[in-house]
Amino acid sequence: MADLLVPGAHRARGLLDDAALVRAMLSVEVAWSRALSETGGATAAQAAAVERAAAGWSPLLDPGDVEDAGNPVLPLVTALRERVADPEVAALVHAGLTSQDVLDSALQLLAGEALGRIRTELGQGAAALARLAREHRSTVMAGRTLTQYAVPVTFGLTAAQWLAAILDAAERLGDVRRSLPVQCGGAAGTLARVSAVVPDPAATAAAFARHLGLRAPALPWHVRRTPVTRLGDALAETCDALGVLAADVLTLGRPEIGEVAEGAVAGRGGSSTMPHKRNPVLAVLVNGTALQAPQLAAQLHLAAARSVDQRPDGAWQAEWPALLRLLEVTVVAAAQSAELVRGLRVHADVMRRRADDAAAHLLAERPGGTGGDPATYLGASEAFVDAVLRRYDEERTDDT
Amino acid sequence: MADLLVPGAHRARGLLDDAALVRAMLSVEVAWSRALSETGGATAAQAAAVERAAAGWSPLLDPGDVEDAGNPVLPLVTALRERVADPEVAALVHAGLTSQDVLDSALQLLAGEALGRIRTELGQGAAALARLAREHRSTVMAGRTLTQYAVPVTFGLTAAQWLAAILDAAERLGDVRRSLPVQCGGAAGTLARVSAVVPDPAATAAAFARHLGLRAPALPWHVRRTPVTRLGDALAETCDALGVLAADVLTLGRPEIGEVAEGAVAGRGGSSTMPHKRNPVLAVLVNGTALQAPQLAAQLHLAAARSVDQRPDGAWQAEWPALLRLLEVTVVAAAQSAELVRGLRVHADVMRRRADDAAAHLLAERPGGTGGDPATYLGASEAFVDAVLRRYDEERTDDT
Amino acid sequence: MADLLVPGAHRARGLLDDAALVRAMLSVEVAWSRALSETGGATAAQAAAVERAAAGWSPLLDPGDVEDAGNPVLPLVTALRERVADPEVAALVHAGLTSQDVLDSALQLLAGEALGRIRTELGQGAAALARLAREHRSTVMAGRTLTQYAVPVTFGLTAAQWLAAILDAAERLGDVRRSLPVQCGGAAGTLARVSAVVPDPAATAAAFARHLGLRAPALPWHVRRTPVTRLGDALAETCDALGVLAADVLTLGRPEIGEVAEGAVAGRGGSSTMPHKRNPVLAVLVNGTALQAPQLAAQLHLAAARSVDQRPDGAWQAEWPALLRLLEVTVVAAAQSAELVRGLRVHADVMRRRADDAAAHLLAERPGGTGGDPATYLGASEAFVDAVLRRYDEERTDDT
Amino acid sequence: MADLLVPGAHRARGLLDDAALVRAMLSVEVAWSRALSETGGATAAQAAAVERAAAGWSPLLDPGDVEDAGNPVLPLVTALRERVADPEVAALVHAGLTSQDVLDSALQLLAGEALGRIRTELGQGAAALARLAREHRSTVMAGRTLTQYAVPVTFGLTAAQWLAAILDAAERLGDVRRSLPVQCGGAAGTLARVSAVVPDPAATAAAFARHLGLRAPALPWHVRRTPVTRLGDALAETCDALGVLAADVLTLGRPEIGEVAEGAVAGRGGSSTMPHKRNPVLAVLVNGTALQAPQLAAQLHLAAARSVDQRPDGAWQAEWPALLRLLEVTVVAAAQSAELVRGLRVHADVMRRRADDAAAHLLAERPGGTGGDPATYLGASEAFVDAVLRRYDEERTDDT
Repeated sequence: MADLLVPGAHRARGLLDDAALVRAMLSVEVAWSRALSETGGATAAQAAAVERAAAGWSPLLDPGDVEDAGNPVLPLVTALRERVADPEVAALVHAGLTSQDVLDSALQLLAGEALGRIRTELGQGAAALARLAREHRSTVMAGRTLTQYAVPVTFGLTAAQWLAAILDAAERLGDVRRSLPVQCGGAAGTLARVSAVVPDPAATAAAFARHLGLRAPALPWHVRRTPVTRLGDALAETCDALGVLAADVLTLGRPEIGEVAEGAVAGRGGSSTMPHKRNPVLAVLVNGTALQAPQLAAQLHLAAARSVDQRPDGAWQAEWPALLRLLEVTVVAAAQSAELVRGLRVHADVMRRRADDAAAHLLAERPGGTGGDPATYLGASEAFVDAVLRRYDEERTDDT
Repeated sequence: MADLLVPGAHRARGLLDDAALVRAMLSVEVAWSRALSETGGATAAQAAAVERAAAGWSPLLDPGDVEDAGNPVLPLVTALRERVADPEVAALVHAGLTSQDVLDSALQLLAGEALGRIRTELGQGAAALARLAREHRSTVMAGRTLTQYAVPVTFGLTAAQWLAAILDAAERLGDVRRSLPVQCGGAAGTLARVSAVVPDPAATAAAFARHLGLRAPALPWHVRRTPVTRLGDALAETCDALGVLAADVLTLGRPEIGEVAEGAVAGRGGSSTMPHKRNPVLAVLVNGTALQAPQLAAQLHLAAARSVDQRPDGAWQAEWPALLRLLEVTVVAAAQSAELVRGLRVHADVMRRRADDAAAHLLAERPGGTGGDPATYLGASEAFVDAVLRRYDEERTDDT
Repeated sequence: MADLLVPGAHRARGLLDDAALVRAMLSVEVAWSRALSETGGATAAQAAAVERAAAGWSPLLDPGDVEDAGNPVLPLVTALRERVADPEVAALVHAGLTSQDVLDSALQLLAGEALGRIRTELGQGAAALARLAREHRSTVMAGRTLTQYAVPVTFGLTAAQWLAAILDAAERLGDVRRSLPVQCGGAAGTLARVSAVVPDPAATAAAFARHLGLRAPALPWHVRRTPVTRLGDALAETCDALGVLAADVLTLGRPEIGEVAEGAVAGRGGSSTMPHKRNPVLAVLVNGTALQAPQLAAQLHLAAARSVDQRPDGAWQAEWPALLRLLEVTVVAAAQSAELVRGLRVHADVMRRRADDAAAHLLAERPGGTGGDPATYLGASEAFVDAVLRRYDEERTDDT
Repeated sequence: MADLLVPGAHRARGLLDDAALVRAMLSVEVAWSRALSETGGATAAQAAAVERAAAGWSPLLDPGDVEDAGNPVLPLVTALRERVADPEVAALVHAGLTSQDVLDSALQLLAGEALGRIRTELGQGAAALARLAREHRSTVMAGRTLTQYAVPVTFGLTAAQWLAAILDAAERLGDVRRSLPVQCGGAAGTLARVSAVVPDPAATAAAFARHLGLRAPALPWHVRRTPVTRLGDALAETCDALGVLAADVLTLGRPEIGEVAEGAVAGRGGSSTMPHKRNPVLAVLVNGTALQAPQLAAQLHLAAARSVDQRPDGAWQAEWPALLRLLEVTVVAAAQSAELVRGLRVHADVMRRRADDAAAHLLAERPGGTGGDPATYLGASEAFVDAVLRRYDEERTDDT
């Protein structure tokens, strides 16, 4: 499919493409061989032979073969077995796994990489938002509800709310990332095949997970897709947070409002026909992503709800493109948002002037009169900013 | 809208209807008056007057007024102020709150009630599934993947997987339930108005939360909707789990398979035209619910992503019906599922006979020959059952 | 479920509630008896007895019975048979139908009523938009793309685009309305049962359709749900059109822009805390609806895609609430939008002043200089307005 | 994104990828130059120079430039202008268009190609289904409703229902295809810029459409997205139809039912671990696609509902990946389905035997006794088959 229609896709380059997937699937097969060898199902030499065969190898799989198999695992296993010349070693490759074990584990690996990237980008965005919240802790601006003037707020509080949403999302992404599980069940989730060659299949599964840096779950999740839906939910939550930020920037950056602007970057935001126009491109793209994430996450739940039998007849297949796309757009949106907030220009003077001009509206609620200085009716705004900044400081420390 | 088209809706009767909502909104207003009185914003007598006015009162709100206000809070506040005769007390009602504070908090109260009910039903279902998993720990049956025979499994493992999914969901629902927050921000999320009448608005907010049995969050979440989306995600996860169970029961209960059947209940499952037919009604209804939950949860994310300004211009409004419907169908599906598994008839003999008949397929994977007894190729099935039952026992103990 | 959370729901009162559904189902049963009597399956006296029994009768169905049956048809048929004293006549009631025949047909009847209402409201809205387009054919305003100033447009063109979208939607709704089909297939879509009592079941089906004012399709559509998905698609298209209008009104009505405003209506748009605030309630509510329709229509497609066997095991059930809700919110949004545009206040002076102030931006594209009057760079704006008005006039004439 | 996770994606190769998109965008720019030259905005030589510059040229666009512009049009226009050496000609390239004109038109071109392919594949599938319906017009089989035995049907009727759904979809796709519009509005939908260089911009737009084989709409549809949503709705309807077929094949092909089977193809449907297994791969993949289409189509409606201002701030961008993906999966699913039904093996003997065995259930509804031959209780089954076949024959003739 056309990458040109996901502007910014290059920010996720190499993370989620076919080559990365093949590499992850090979890592899974290698880890399995090593796990077998460490738990009595193969010799160390055999595992090493598999590892050597896979090292630095990037096979191109035939798409017809992929369709015939219904997924890319069988063609890859066939190719890997051919590459491992020794038939005894070849027989060990993938022995006891099912294709879903490999693909699910590989996708968790890719998700882990993508989540790492997302969290880094969110961290950058959070740092910039914390600076904005601190700097504009007392920058008064008009509060707007249902599009109309409400009471005064501060730009610091606005930034703090954006920041709090990102901290929420980052926390949940962190939980998900720490719990990414390996998939290991064999043909129908019983580990029957591997049980025939190792004394303790649970030990094999544990070694498998350890080699991949994934969690060893208590039992297979071929048809119990919480690892996938929770990942999707956390990504959607992330996009929700970024989408609100972007939508607010778009509103506040309308020329009639003019309270913020995307940073000027040479060559960015130009129009194909209007020479002097500067479009808020990053905010537009992030806003567009936020309109897509809910459907993609819903796709994962729907697939989860249809995960029937011991392994399903279409639901699993329906997960893949949605999961990859959701990971990709979240990586891209997180990076675009980080750049957006780092470059954001805040026109505190415009905010102040507008608040003063609209004071009659903004202070209409105040008991005892409608006039006065909007900055004297900010309630707990600063305390709220401080609470978010405290949380930010604590969580940043926790991360180190 | 027609309740007749949500068969089983009576199982959630009284939890999520207009009367419950009005009651919850009144509780919120009463709690606010008490919180004001405890933190310096009103006298105890004034708070008591509000409480008396609300006690046992069920006003019918005019739908035209609700539309004019855009939500039911303003008409309710107006009615409550009228009912509180004393103008000084009337002025205290709702003082410092915005309509979103009241409605968000009220919906969290309703959600708390509904989550309690859902968890009770899931607990009943889990108990029945634990019995089935234990009883059928060694009941061999054909494993089926992509609709075709795979390797043997046990019915105990099948039930254990259903159970594990329910435990996952119940855990997450529990997390959500423990963190249901009060909403308390005033007109634009700054607590400005209440700050003008109490010395420490944070203390007022804390008291408010305490009276309602909700959590006091660090700052308002008018436009940071994680409390709503996390609730929706957990409900969708629950429906996913129930949907898999129902879909599997439907497949295994097809007449050509006949390995399980819904319990016979007089008058249930009849056809309007075929006298001897027994439809698996509960499974059908739960399956239908599982097809609805993903879209409803997606609706909440979409609304979250559009929660702009200090309070949004349609996104908040778009949450309400989806949230209520999702809560309702999850209550109903949890209850139907509990009844379904409690009554489930398991035909272990049919399972065994089929596994024997299909042994050539089921054992084709086994190294060294395809014949033999399927029950000898179960791998870690029993260990997996035991792991889930251990978890079940532990979590049940935790709950007491 | 709480109606209070669908502000404006009273605008659809009586169209889509339980009473309307029961009435429609009774009409279906009566029409069937008459069709039988006219085509050799019953006597005229028997049909008249059924009709008498149903006339003016509004049974309350037991929700437990509805759940046991999986839908409300069987309880209704049972009650109707009891009410028809004569056992021979009772046996004729529903003879040859399946519950899906009755419920699908009844929902098509309700849809027909709702579509009629929607088209009336759209017609009112279209008339108002046509007036606005005509009146403001040359009212220059700033064009805005990606939130920034582009080239000048006219408010007439903006209104004409809104109008064109409504004409598109109304046209499609009209197509759907004219093709609403009766459902008539019997237990598994073969008309076997009725074939045993009438000589020509197709004639019976045709008479059945004629009595209900529905189309007689070539064959049953129990599991071929195009009538439902096309209805849903047309409703979503309608809500898309109304949503754009509402979103534009919300933007143009922001206080910093101030080019339009919702008409002032006493008691509407008040805030629960800010005395002088006027919220654009209608636009907010319509905007909220537009965020809901896509998921509801998707629900119908999803159900369609899962309509397996001769009649499905959950997918059909998953249609009902989404279909009713989508009909309801479209009726409400169409009515709210009609009222919104009829009352819309257009500040042509503000538009003009802004266009003049922003002329440097608005005219930057123009070859040969950036200054001048925005009104001289309107391209085909007026021709486009005229084209839409011509279409409006033609289609209005067609409708009479 | 990984193509390996859309098994069968090679069936749409070249239709919807970056190269095809760039080619289509160049066609649009060339067509525009020609349209200008034919209507007074350029000389024939200038248009020919643009055409020469674009002929056989496949520029690689820099993804950073694409992001900076927010879409791939501006980078392409810049590159094309550079390639056209003569500055006067370069200035003509894209003169009067906006990027949305180019991208929308290019996507309509791609959609036209894809729709052509889909209709061809549906035609092949329809032909095979017509053969099956005819051949099995009287092949009795058990009818199944809510998973349980209902009354007898024929396999011919089952195939005829699948066929009717495909004919419905093909008809709607045909309507959409015939009405694919060009986009032509300039910066804000007024054609202002081109109006400055040609006497009759409508004539230019008409010529533009003619060169591209698209329809010239009455006015631009930058923010009135019915052309996109109707396309999406028709594609979803197509996937619904294919999904039902696939789901039914999966059920009927379960080993315990065994009434149909996917045709055996060497190397297809193998398992990575179970040597003798044959997975119904095509049906599984089509079923998986049907679970994805509804969300993708909903994405288009959601974007439509958010198409604000004169050109929107994220909604348009949110359309692209969903539209491309939906086109792609529909092409793939249509091709897989055609192959599936052409190769389908129908076990009429198994159907007959089962119907006989289940006769007591299948005939329970019949007045006057439950025994007998299921083939004598088929009602209008054959007439329904004939009606669908007649429609098929007529529409096939219409197509030639």
